[in-house]
Amino acid sequence: MNYKMVTFVLGRAIFALGVFLALPTVCAIAFKESIIPFLVPMAISLLIGALLSAKKPADSRMLSLEGFICVALSWIALSLIGCLPLIISGAIPSFIDAFFETISGFTTTGASVLAEIETLPKGILLWRCFTQWIGGMGVLVFLLAVMPKADIKSTKFMHAMKAEMPGPSVAKVVPKIADTARVMYGIYIALTIVLFVLLMFGDMNVYESLCHAVSTAGTGGFGIKNDSLASYSAYSQYVIAVFMMLFAINFNVYFLIIIGNFIKGIKSEELWWYIGIASVSTLVISLIVSGLFGSSEESFRHAFFQVASIMSTTGFSTSDFGAWPVIAQAILLLLMFGGGSAGSTAGGIKISRVLLLAKNAGREIKYLLHPRAIISVKFEGKKVEHETVRSTTSYIIIYAGLLILSSLLIVAFESVDLVTGFSSAVTTLNNVGPGLAEVGPSSNFGGMSVVSKLVLCFNMIAGRLELFPILILFSPMSWKKTA
Amino acid sequence: MNYKMVTFVLGRAIFALGVFLALPTVCAIAFKESIIPFLVPMAISLLIGALLSAKKPADSRMLSLEGFICVALSWIALSLIGCLPLIISGAIPSFIDAFFETISGFTTTGASVLAEIETLPKGILLWRCFTQWIGGMGVLVFLLAVMPKADIKSTKFMHAMKAEMPGPSVAKVVPKIADTARVMYGIYIALTIVLFVLLMFGDMNVYESLCHAVSTAGTGGFGIKNDSLASYSAYSQYVIAVFMMLFAINFNVYFLIIIGNFIKGIKSEELWWYIGIASVSTLVISLIVSGLFGSSEESFRHAFFQVASIMSTTGFSTSDFGAWPVIAQAILLLLMFGGGSAGSTAGGIKISRVLLLAKNAGREIKYLLHPRAIISVKFEGKKVEHETVRSTTSYIIIYAGLLILSSLLIVAFESVDLVTGFSSAVTTLNNVGPGLAEVGPSSNFGGMSVVSKLVLCFNMIAGRLELFPILILFSPMSWKKTA
Repeated sequence: MNYKMVTFVLGRAIFALGVFLALPTVCAIAFKESIIPFLVPMAISLLIGALLSAKKPADSRMLSLEGFICVALSWIALSLIGCLPLIISGAIPSFIDAFFETISGFTTTGASVLAEIETLPKGILLWRCFTQWIGGMGVLVFLLAVMPKADIKSTKFMHAMKAEMPGPSVAKVVPKIADTARVMYGIYIALTIVLFVLLMFGDMNVYESLCHAVSTAGTGGFGIKNDSLASYSAYSQYVIAVFMMLFAINFNVYFLIIIGNFIKGIKSEELWWYIGIASVSTLVISLIVSGLFGSSEESFRHAFFQVASIMSTTGFSTSDFGAWPVIAQAILLLLMFGGGSAGSTAGGIKISRVLLLAKNAGREIKYLLHPRAIISVKFEGKKVEHETVRSTTSYIIIYAGLLILSSLLIVAFESVDLVTGFSSAVTTLNNVGPGLAEVGPSSNFGGMSVVSKLVLCFNMIAGRLELFPILILFSPMSWKKTA
Repeated sequence: MNYKMVTFVLGRAIFALGVFLALPTVCAIAFKESIIPFLVPMAISLLIGALLSAKKPADSRMLSLEGFICVALSWIALSLIGCLPLIISGAIPSFIDAFFETISGFTTTGASVLAEIETLPKGILLWRCFTQWIGGMGVLVFLLAVMPKADIKSTKFMHAMKAEMPGPSVAKVVPKIADTARVMYGIYIALTIVLFVLLMFGDMNVYESLCHAVSTAGTGGFGIKNDSLASYSAYSQYVIAVFMMLFAINFNVYFLIIIGNFIKGIKSEELWWYIGIASVSTLVISLIVSGLFGSSEESFRHAFFQVASIMSTTGFSTSDFGAWPVIAQAILLLLMFGGGSAGSTAGGIKISRVLLLAKNAGREIKYLLHPRAIISVKFEGKKVEHETVRSTTSYIIIYAGLLILSSLLIVAFESVDLVTGFSSAVTTLNNVGPGLAEVGPSSNFGGMSVVSKLVLCFNMIAGRLELFPILILFSPMSWKKTA
């Protein structure tokens, strides 16, 4: 392994964190709050980051292994430093709790250990939301977008980006990978600004709009009120619901539309399945909960908001769906798995993977009837390579294994009911946020033991990085010396 | 499709049912009970069976499609006629309930609609248990074993047997398929007799020993007491626990041992995983439930019995595990998925499939580190064909799809909690019997709606026939006219 290059990139990522900490610092100054909680980690980040990346290695080769290790290590390092503001400010004095909260932020999960957040300093709350924006598109993708081309042989760095970008495969929208990163971040920033402006037209002030805009963009789900989005106006709720949906669409669609290829952009198979599933789920849940709300507009709004929140794996809520009829909860639990689209900021298995698996399974029945036929799986109008099918099925098996193992551990260590245990595992592995039963939207993860919190931290990182980087980091195979 | 041949084989299967009905008839005569409930379906079976298979078709070709359709249709036909004794005797007057109970019998599930069984006629109870013995090894496998060779070109009939035999692939223990069927049934009958004799040494009389022997052999789980096996002696409980384990081992192992190839027989990878999982689960659950029982022998016995019962997908119980700590329930729920070994009478996904999937997933991590390497999956010392991996992964995806869909339907139609809904689907699709919560071992499926019962019937048949025959029967593709 090229340790020097891994250290170099890791240093850059840590340095970037120091820069990102400027935003909450400015916020703290504006609200006349203490800036010490931000200055300390900022100094640490800039110092360690500068030291680690001081000398550019002569050999800038990065293969798959280096890419995966880089991604896994930088996410852990960022969470370790990123939790310092929470600890120093006294918002979350316990290290493990602050670490959990920060991982939940960076991985855009939104699961919280806090019951009471409204009394926290405004700078801290903004930092909490902002970690979700940083994690939404990824730190290494950010580095790719801003680093001088000479620093990394960017085609080799593709592997690292592949590991951080959600979805079965990174579509290179433009030939050069660094340009792709720039385009992605450009779209991300533009959409965030549009959302920010739209929110200010409603009942949110500048600060509230900023917090919710960055949290929504990352499909994170950290808010600034104890009841999430419940007490905001219908306008704000609709705006956020629509943008949660938008941020869970493959960014390639936007890119194609921007460069004028509108038809090709909206011809995406994944997009229409995504819209279809969201529409049907919203309709069905609206009907199921119609007895709970005063008007059909309200039923529709809450159903739509929760569907958008869960499908995009954001995790905001406008209503305690833990108190909804069981069948509505079952549908939401199911939507947690599907997640958003590949190439978006959403978590979960991703619609495209589910489609690929379904098509592959459908093919099997044809094979049974015509054993000697050659039948290919088609997706987005193209024949799917055997390797893609293989890696997708392997992905889902490892995913299921992690889900089962982590559910068992939670049930074993917490003595909670099966729904709480299972939904804790599901909601963290899919980076959603709230679960069901004892970890439902009206509750939090604060009461869990240290072991359970570490298990869920593992799930959140594994889910956000789509399993492999974190498994490779912990795999003895990766650390064997090879000739 | 060769309709004439399908009709011919179906006729033979129905005729065989008429012959099988002789056993409960003899029992009814012995206990001086009415024999009408058995004579009517027997007459119907023999008549319809003889009519349908009166003329041997000139063209005895059977391809995959005919095989699958034959298997699916004969299981439905047998359940429709097999439920008549329950209806006529008045034991279960409702058709849908009797149909559910009979499908539960033939598919060796053991899920019941009855709360009170001890007052039922002895002939009826024996029939209920005996359906599980018939379904355990399969009706078409039976036909293969007893039919004159000239009736069916047996190599072609392989496809049908493949559909009825559990596990990823039928190992032809001897070159001719009809001989394989005979060997399998021979081992099955011999083991059943040994169990029957052993049970008579304990606190069961001849009748009780017979009922429990046939039910255990089929890994079914229908008993003759309301509390299943709880009120029998420790001796009987141990004997049944050991035999549940034995019947869930690949019968090839016994065959190899019988022909003197002991080493090759016990060298099976699946066998050792099966024993390992059972041992670890028993140990862990013994510790978890140690507070609930008076002695460590008792804790061990109940833990071992329940593990054996669930892993072999039998479904007997000696203790209401629905009242055990949640983590013990979670482990048992998980064991329901694994099931027994391929080529045994057990249900579930089968250990060999789980192993294959795990190995395939492990390979993916190697691929990520060495993208251009060629890495093969090995199982039982041999390289696994690409087609086997493909069909196993497809199997598991379809399986998961059915599980999710049926859980949702149950939750929607019954307004039960998620654990009840999910465990109903799991226990029927894996042919186990009892679930958790409202369908736990101390409860039954009697209170469910007709729709839910039909959904669970579908699950039971789909699970027993390993999905494909029943999906192919309902697939429009199968019924399209081809040139």
